Amino acid sequence: MAKLPIPYKIYLSEEEIPRQWYNLNAAMKVKHAPFLDPATGMPCTADALEQVFCGACVAQEQNKTDLYIDIPEEIRDFYKMYRPSPLVRAYCLEKALGTPAEIYYKFEGNNTSGSHKLNSAAAQAYYAKKQGLESVTTETGAGQWGTALSMACAYYGLDLTVYMVKVSCEQKPYRKEVMRTYGAAVIPSPSDTTEAGRKILREFPGTGGSLGCAIGEAVEKAVVTPSCRYVLGSVLDHVLLHQSVIGLESKAALAKYGIEPDIVIGCVGGGSNYGGLIAPFMGEKIAGKNDIDFIGVEPASCPSLTRGKYVYDYCDSARITPLAKMYTLGCGFMPAPSHAGGLRYHGMSPVVSELYHQGWMRAVAVGQNKVFEAAEYFARVEGILPAPESAHAIRVAIDEALRCRETGKKKRILFGLTGTGYFDMAAYKRYNDGEMSDTVPTDADLAAGFATIPDIPANK
Amino acid sequence: MAKLPIPYKIYLSEEEIPRQWYNLNAAMKVKHAPFLDPATGMPCTADALEQVFCGACVAQEQNKTDLYIDIPEEIRDFYKMYRPSPLVRAYCLEKALGTPAEIYYKFEGNNTSGSHKLNSAAAQAYYAKKQGLESVTTETGAGQWGTALSMACAYYGLDLTVYMVKVSCEQKPYRKEVMRTYGAAVIPSPSDTTEAGRKILREFPGTGGSLGCAIGEAVEKAVVTPSCRYVLGSVLDHVLLHQSVIGLESKAALAKYGIEPDIVIGCVGGGSNYGGLIAPFMGEKIAGKNDIDFIGVEPASCPSLTRGKYVYDYCDSARITPLAKMYTLGCGFMPAPSHAGGLRYHGMSPVVSELYHQGWMRAVAVGQNKVFEAAEYFARVEGILPAPESAHAIRVAIDEALRCRETGKKKRILFGLTGTGYFDMAAYKRYNDGEMSDTVPTDADLAAGFATIPDIPANK
Repeated sequence: MAKLPIPYKIYLSEEEIPRQWYNLNAAMKVKHAPFLDPATGMPCTADALEQVFCGACVAQEQNKTDLYIDIPEEIRDFYKMYRPSPLVRAYCLEKALGTPAEIYYKFEGNNTSGSHKLNSAAAQAYYAKKQGLESVTTETGAGQWGTALSMACAYYGLDLTVYMVKVSCEQKPYRKEVMRTYGAAVIPSPSDTTEAGRKILREFPGTGGSLGCAIGEAVEKAVVTPSCRYVLGSVLDHVLLHQSVIGLESKAALAKYGIEPDIVIGCVGGGSNYGGLIAPFMGEKIAGKNDIDFIGVEPASCPSLTRGKYVYDYCDSARITPLAKMYTLGCGFMPAPSHAGGLRYHGMSPVVSELYHQGWMRAVAVGQNKVFEAAEYFARVEGILPAPESAHAIRVAIDEALRCRETGKKKRILFGLTGTGYFDMAAYKRYNDGEMSDTVPTDADLAAGFATIPDIPANK
Repeated sequence: MAKLPIPYKIYLSEEEIPRQWYNLNAAMKVKHAPFLDPATGMPCTADALEQVFCGACVAQEQNKTDLYIDIPEEIRDFYKMYRPSPLVRAYCLEKALGTPAEIYYKFEGNNTSGSHKLNSAAAQAYYAKKQGLESVTTETGAGQWGTALSMACAYYGLDLTVYMVKVSCEQKPYRKEVMRTYGAAVIPSPSDTTEAGRKILREFPGTGGSLGCAIGEAVEKAVVTPSCRYVLGSVLDHVLLHQSVIGLESKAALAKYGIEPDIVIGCVGGGSNYGGLIAPFMGEKIAGKNDIDFIGVEPASCPSLTRGKYVYDYCDSARITPLAKMYTLGCGFMPAPSHAGGLRYHGMSPVVSELYHQGWMRAVAVGQNKVFEAAEYFARVEGILPAPESAHAIRVAIDEALRCRETGKKKRILFGLTGTGYFDMAAYKRYNDGEMSDTVPTDADLAAGFATIPDIPANK
């Protein structure tokens, strides 16, 4: 068969938007350990989880057997507003690097939320509405997740309260404004609207807040409000499930031209975009059908995979969530300031953690200046201004392509470009001004973080 | 032939990116009046224009005979990074409005510049490079044009100096940062780098600058710098020519489904996006092949078409450019603050002016609050956060669709969605806070503006 020329952008038709999500959990021969209730040390029950989360999401969270799970038509209709997302052949980048490698990236930033977060926001808002709920709550740090969820709630007709870390609220007033424009109530956290918030305000009157505190407020608000649940944008299995549309579309687009990637690269914070991107490719690797080199890229300032421990830990710094078995720096670990707010997480998705633990993937930690160098280079060559988070994947994709230039190998590299950097220009300014810090945690910093890991029997 | 179902987004393939621009000038039976040299009162010569602009652009500017002009492959390669842009069927908006109308919009915001400006920036940067120039200069107000040109110059390897209105520079530091990220030198205007700037600084030490002043600095810098020319992002015929890709792609996408629009709507500031969107449709109307209702939408605060005069006027408030015959409020007209910076222009493209004068189109002026009401409604329903400029077209598209609900007519409405509003959240905040002003010029304001129109024989 004559080879078709590969265009700059491979678009699927709307009919080719996946009709089923890919459940990586079902593909894994050894499953990750269950969540534990910190009060009892026993696995969390569905009943307990349903006090906080939607029923459908809890069922998906605990589904370890169905490899494919149907996507409701109402969610596919929402997806049609911004999907399929383009799979781009980075011709300009290849040429600029002088590499024999073929570079492809899946661009998830072409929507108003500016990132992949919308893929799960749409699903979670839909299931909440279908369950008959009137409202949901969530927290947001950098703001992408809150923005995505506000768009989804506007679409499905659901009230939304977003607890936004107070210091982020002040540093990124326009992010807050986007959420307001979509009708969400945005409350700087800590606030006086919850017991958790009032407690923090009494103890630390001038605090700028933290993600842990915002999670605490959002969960409390959801539990005490009638017809309300809490939704989370990363880490959990059902979030990774929703994000599998990224990998499924990438695989379908490449297949149109008979391409199978040799390397798949994504940035990892909580793990949702990475877990979604790799899902169907990883499933095949586990089944012995490919030998892809999977790379998760994390910031050197918050190196949970490369320098963390694989133990049970709280998912949040306020210690109100269940315990998850994951790579963690300790729920009390405080990373040095990083401009990739979306990657500042002490832990890692249990699915990604288990894959890493079993050796199905590797991890690389990169410093901020190298990340922004790649981001600016990519912007000028490929015309897309990447989010700092996404630029972690770009950095390693460039490094791998340069390695191909040395070896002469024509590898096919696929990476995930999760979002755009329009709301991150303060960080770009710091880089342009030569004022970007490159702090990495010392051994003492790590030890202090590890000391906050709960001392429970399962961790002995 | 069985009708194909129309998807949410109609994408063309890369092969279907136009290979020729559409020269509306050639389609017009009565051409617009020529530019005049203010010193002599005689039409400007190509030689005079080539001191300021690239030769290829001057030739296109003066071409009134060739209906199609080839797009060089190097420019098509640039276009492939972000084109073809999607033509969207606004199913969600139609449903929300309960209208029998079909609504389509051409979305030009899916690129890092965030607007249609890139279509001409790419062409002008390419021609400058091809002419052997080393650098170009331009001015920018709100920042979209400067951003687009900085991307194009980074791609073609051309130095760029952008004179950015000082007050914009301070109000939109992140816009400036995007340009820096693409390697442009951004100079707040007025500056001490030009005679024009120094003069203003001596006379008005604390001034925040103006677009007229920035144009003066950019033109002076281009003229005194070896191997340098000036480029402009709107108003001129060659800019409208480059923007015709918008209309050509829209027409091709609709034709795939046998659709001919009944109404075509765009916002008008300098007229470049509107002139590009309507080009091929308007050419057919002039040739008697359709009877489309063309609507140009302008802000009530700066109503050059609906309340201006059709006379010769300077293109800039510093009175350094040639005179153009156009609808104008007077080169000294100062509009009340408006958040659609891209529409704050005292004049109007000569091509659009002449079409309006001949009755081929109509114009509507809308107030800011009604515009932001439409913008927010659209964002929530269609998922795209529009630029305030683009929202002028949305407002009138919604109004026309609501009229169809009353009359029961199933009209097909096409409008241009020129860009995204990510850098306009301060304006959205003002709207959300109920602090948006709706000032329109009084008769006295207009009289003061008209008094600044030059008193020359051609205007008697």
